[in-house]
Amino acid sequence: MAKEFMGKDFLLNNEPAIKMFEAADKMPIFDWHCHLSPKEIYENAQPADIAWLWLAGDHYKWRAMRSCGVDEKYITGDATGYEKFKAFAGIMPNLIGNPMYHWCHLELRRYFGINDILCAKTADDIWNRANAAIKAGGFTPRELIEKSNVSHLCTTDDPADSLEYHVLLAKESDFKCKVLPAFRPDKALGIDLPAWRDWLKAMEKCVGRSIDGFEALCDALNERIEFFASLGCCASDHAFAYVPYEKATAEELDCIFAKVKNGGEASVVEADKFKTALLAFLAEKYSDKGWVMELHIGPMRNNNTLMFNRIGPDAGFDSIDDREIAGKLSRFLDSLAVKEKLPKTVLFTLNPKDNYVLGAMLGNFQNSDAESKIQFGSAWWFNDNIDGMREQMKALGNLGALGKFVGMVTDSRSFLSYPRHEYFRRIMCGLLGDMVENGLYPFDEKAVCKIAEDISYNNAAKYFGI
Amino acid sequence: MAKEFMGKDFLLNNEPAIKMFEAADKMPIFDWHCHLSPKEIYENAQPADIAWLWLAGDHYKWRAMRSCGVDEKYITGDATGYEKFKAFAGIMPNLIGNPMYHWCHLELRRYFGINDILCAKTADDIWNRANAAIKAGGFTPRELIEKSNVSHLCTTDDPADSLEYHVLLAKESDFKCKVLPAFRPDKALGIDLPAWRDWLKAMEKCVGRSIDGFEALCDALNERIEFFASLGCCASDHAFAYVPYEKATAEELDCIFAKVKNGGEASVVEADKFKTALLAFLAEKYSDKGWVMELHIGPMRNNNTLMFNRIGPDAGFDSIDDREIAGKLSRFLDSLAVKEKLPKTVLFTLNPKDNYVLGAMLGNFQNSDAESKIQFGSAWWFNDNIDGMREQMKALGNLGALGKFVGMVTDSRSFLSYPRHEYFRRIMCGLLGDMVENGLYPFDEKAVCKIAEDISYNNAAKYFGI
Amino acid sequence: MAKEFMGKDFLLNNEPAIKMFEAADKMPIFDWHCHLSPKEIYENAQPADIAWLWLAGDHYKWRAMRSCGVDEKYITGDATGYEKFKAFAGIMPNLIGNPMYHWCHLELRRYFGINDILCAKTADDIWNRANAAIKAGGFTPRELIEKSNVSHLCTTDDPADSLEYHVLLAKESDFKCKVLPAFRPDKALGIDLPAWRDWLKAMEKCVGRSIDGFEALCDALNERIEFFASLGCCASDHAFAYVPYEKATAEELDCIFAKVKNGGEASVVEADKFKTALLAFLAEKYSDKGWVMELHIGPMRNNNTLMFNRIGPDAGFDSIDDREIAGKLSRFLDSLAVKEKLPKTVLFTLNPKDNYVLGAMLGNFQNSDAESKIQFGSAWWFNDNIDGMREQMKALGNLGALGKFVGMVTDSRSFLSYPRHEYFRRIMCGLLGDMVENGLYPFDEKAVCKIAEDISYNNAAKYFGI
Repeated sequence: MAKEFMGKDFLLNNEPAIKMFEAADKMPIFDWHCHLSPKEIYENAQPADIAWLWLAGDHYKWRAMRSCGVDEKYITGDATGYEKFKAFAGIMPNLIGNPMYHWCHLELRRYFGINDILCAKTADDIWNRANAAIKAGGFTPRELIEKSNVSHLCTTDDPADSLEYHVLLAKESDFKCKVLPAFRPDKALGIDLPAWRDWLKAMEKCVGRSIDGFEALCDALNERIEFFASLGCCASDHAFAYVPYEKATAEELDCIFAKVKNGGEASVVEADKFKTALLAFLAEKYSDKGWVMELHIGPMRNNNTLMFNRIGPDAGFDSIDDREIAGKLSRFLDSLAVKEKLPKTVLFTLNPKDNYVLGAMLGNFQNSDAESKIQFGSAWWFNDNIDGMREQMKALGNLGALGKFVGMVTDSRSFLSYPRHEYFRRIMCGLLGDMVENGLYPFDEKAVCKIAEDISYNNAAKYFGI
Repeated sequence: MAKEFMGKDFLLNNEPAIKMFEAADKMPIFDWHCHLSPKEIYENAQPADIAWLWLAGDHYKWRAMRSCGVDEKYITGDATGYEKFKAFAGIMPNLIGNPMYHWCHLELRRYFGINDILCAKTADDIWNRANAAIKAGGFTPRELIEKSNVSHLCTTDDPADSLEYHVLLAKESDFKCKVLPAFRPDKALGIDLPAWRDWLKAMEKCVGRSIDGFEALCDALNERIEFFASLGCCASDHAFAYVPYEKATAEELDCIFAKVKNGGEASVVEADKFKTALLAFLAEKYSDKGWVMELHIGPMRNNNTLMFNRIGPDAGFDSIDDREIAGKLSRFLDSLAVKEKLPKTVLFTLNPKDNYVLGAMLGNFQNSDAESKIQFGSAWWFNDNIDGMREQMKALGNLGALGKFVGMVTDSRSFLSYPRHEYFRRIMCGLLGDMVENGLYPFDEKAVCKIAEDISYNNAAKYFGI
Repeated sequence: MAKEFMGKDFLLNNEPAIKMFEAADKMPIFDWHCHLSPKEIYENAQPADIAWLWLAGDHYKWRAMRSCGVDEKYITGDATGYEKFKAFAGIMPNLIGNPMYHWCHLELRRYFGINDILCAKTADDIWNRANAAIKAGGFTPRELIEKSNVSHLCTTDDPADSLEYHVLLAKESDFKCKVLPAFRPDKALGIDLPAWRDWLKAMEKCVGRSIDGFEALCDALNERIEFFASLGCCASDHAFAYVPYEKATAEELDCIFAKVKNGGEASVVEADKFKTALLAFLAEKYSDKGWVMELHIGPMRNNNTLMFNRIGPDAGFDSIDDREIAGKLSRFLDSLAVKEKLPKTVLFTLNPKDNYVLGAMLGNFQNSDAESKIQFGSAWWFNDNIDGMREQMKALGNLGALGKFVGMVTDSRSFLSYPRHEYFRRIMCGLLGDMVENGLYPFDEKAVCKIAEDISYNNAAKYFGI
């Protein structure tokens, strides 16, 4: 007989998996990379309704709706929240095999106590019950975070950010979750993007002086690194279609800097030279500070110019690049390792074709600085699903030390996304439980539960030093 | 106990899968991309024997025989049909894990009523019984098509084709299957191939005038599009190692055209400029007409020069390219979308490394023009097997709306290949049935059977507008 | 209830798999590609202890230890064998999902009779028992080889090697395993590596004359091919990040040769021209001799300069390249096929993204020279694990004739690595057994056992002509 839909043993096929998940489920969450807004956490406002919570900013749901032919009016347009929710509910049955189908039902169950299946027929009833639950309370950002047992979370912050809300949150002694900044200098590196000059002005304002060359930029960023560190920052984060590696002299770097500052454009090679040098500078600083460097490799952004012009970035028009990444990534990491300045590093790939390339790359640079000093980041964004997570963990298992994996992050903008940690833990325990069930690993209950707990929380806590 | 070989529940592991297949199996077939000959359908000749049906033109079987060391004499050489059939039967046992093993046995069962296993020992008996069945009748092209419950099929036709047999077939009122032309201008785009000049001459003859520049070529092709449309055409089809994207001026395009028309050769960049502009022109016309544009990405053709010189193209010497495809494909599609001239598009990949690249690419260009306006084409050619189809559907499920998938095509030259739709439906129902069985999707029998019916037929019928 | 850890039916899930493995397990081993030292086999010394056997040269174990943060002192440093063994035992529990976990326990069981689980707690006891077993005898290279039922093995030998130990071993009539040389001219091709000039000097010494141009180099290598053949060599072996294909004139080749011989450096294109021409020359000779050409595609070596400077190559700092390989590989193979000089060829890939590219490439060049003349080499190095082997066999099954597969090689430097053949056979029988169990292939016991035996031994014996 078919298993109950998302029942108690969802994704768990045997006793070892069930036991492991019982252990994993008790662990707190350390969400070491997300896009939650510290301002929203600080202000802690009551959400309007489930449409606001679910559909105001979630480009995963927007893509799903567009894939089913829903008019943009009901996605990012001027339809009401109720109309948008109805439109979304109506397409849900088409999402068989899509993680969104599980995420939504997990959120309905864990936060709203609603066990029904969302579809056109149930949309009105769920709309009413969910909104009644929201009105009854418990849905502010801080309440959701505490309810989700999040011990620490790292936001994503520009070097020029004042971090004022982090300062304020640090004083909120009755909020149980520690909110830490993370250093995301993508705009500093993006000398090939139109926004770079504006960013540079913001940075000049932030440090209170003119920035007139490559070294001055490094100095300014380093100042911000010190400031971020003073607020508990332990991680940086970078996104690249591919990790560049082009050598350049100090003169070249100043030339490129001056050219773009004065309104010119960097060629592809010039941009790669600038990025290589700046990333190397930053990585050395991260190494000195004991920070973790996260490299997110593979996005291809803003593919739809028409929609970009209408509704801007991060609206569901990004996808997966497919370039060669091994050679330059190896050379970049080696250039740091040879100086003994390679920080702890987490390599993420958006293209699953690179799972084995990254899984093998780790081993080139492991040493006794940390347990699995170079980590293979969890399956992310387009891979954040059962198949993607299983493949990433199998690759890491085959090529590295899966027992030392730092596990899941939400990478999310939504306060309701913490069940993705439950989802990950079920998938992880399902995968490892199958190994045990099939005689591929000994069934020592205490030992296998410890592995599940470590991957769920302990490894990351130790690795990031929280 | 081992399941019966290809028994009633072949590829179906549980009740949900079985129920879904019962529903899917009743649906007619809309084979929206195949290489059947309209002439052969019209002429409707009696086949000579099973060797003629199976081995006269099937490069899948030829490759399998060569892989087992069979001499070319028994493949494309002057051996008798009986000898070739015997040679093929003898290698069958080596094809464990190969879809051919299932295709052949499905064909023997569904068309010939033969349930035996084909191997050296049974070859003579099966030869005799199969040929007796053929003689007894029911094996003409139209009989096979009707027996297979094919409601519509789209052939593959050159723009310079007269479509005379489509005209004739349209008048055959007692033939139940509608045979539609599909527009395949590969030869028009292939300015880098030796055959281009000959094709241009044929095209000039077809339109009855000289074609003296890029615009004149566009005009001529547009005239043919109108003609194809008048015969019910609703789809075009293109094959590329990679989708090119090189911008060019009108002058450049005329230069390239003139150079090659006058006996010169286009460089790689010139050919890409010509192809980009011509494909963009055509795509706009498809968009105006409401046609579907099919892009088949990834073949690397005619790898064996010795055999090409001996027996020509499409003889089993093609394989899979592995180039980067994401960047240019994105730019090409965007160049149409920005003008609101991107037609409904089906993206196929021959290289499974690109499943997630394409699955994610779809989402960049979906809108309310159609349900899943950009489709991820079914696993094709070298991926047309259990693993390939499952991977393609899992990628589409994870990244898009699997419930809106337009499903299977045979892409075949053989009138016996319709059981590949049954094979696909079993694999699809097996995959989705497992999800339901495992509690990943609710077991609402009516709802899941509807998904199976939609993917089997309804989605494609709606999408292509038949 | 969970299956016993690595019990009798390890990796075998059903009756067909169990029957097939019973048959496969009885077959001898033909290890047609390994890195065992003929000198060590000839000298046949008693090993010191299990630390020497396991940790003195095994970069797989070194990588695993580094991945768990073990200090290099306990890996390649000056810690004692006991300390190293303890350090390794301590990290074992983290290797869930890693083939090392199975290899180690298979070796403990098959050679030492130790069924315990290796971890920190059991380390001392296993250290004592394993070393007692070694002292009790049966652990010399020849004893291990014979105990493992190895009928033939092919070592890996430089063209300039004297093969003196092969000569000596050929006279050891009471050693049951035939040890054959294999021709590995990587250093000859490596004109872009610093070691090339030294290699050329060694080669000049070996042939007793100066080598002053490309043709002279070819002559010298051909002389060595004849010598290798006289000692029973039947295979050559090459490793490439990608197979090059750049045409060059005889003059260009002499220029490049002279330039590098005289202390200059070859550019990338020059090196590719040299390699293309030399590999083509060698391949023709292999074809004439009936040798098998093995092409190992995909390693990216010596990624960690700091560690290379400290401990040299082959120490666990290699990983997987990700370049495009299809186009050039096709052109190279075609350039031989068109002259009817393409030897039997085994294509290996280190990057699993290329499984379908290689699986499809085979078919372009199969003919009646041999059964599956072009072979898809078994999953290798970073893919030498359950997932990697299953994926390689599934790709070969889908695209070729799996029944003609030449199967497993250890590719190992360790005399204890023969249980990897058992591991492969279990995985192969598990995969094929599942097909039979699920009704995808008929359960004719004799027939399926024959397939298992053929892939385990018979196919390779026939293909290599031993």
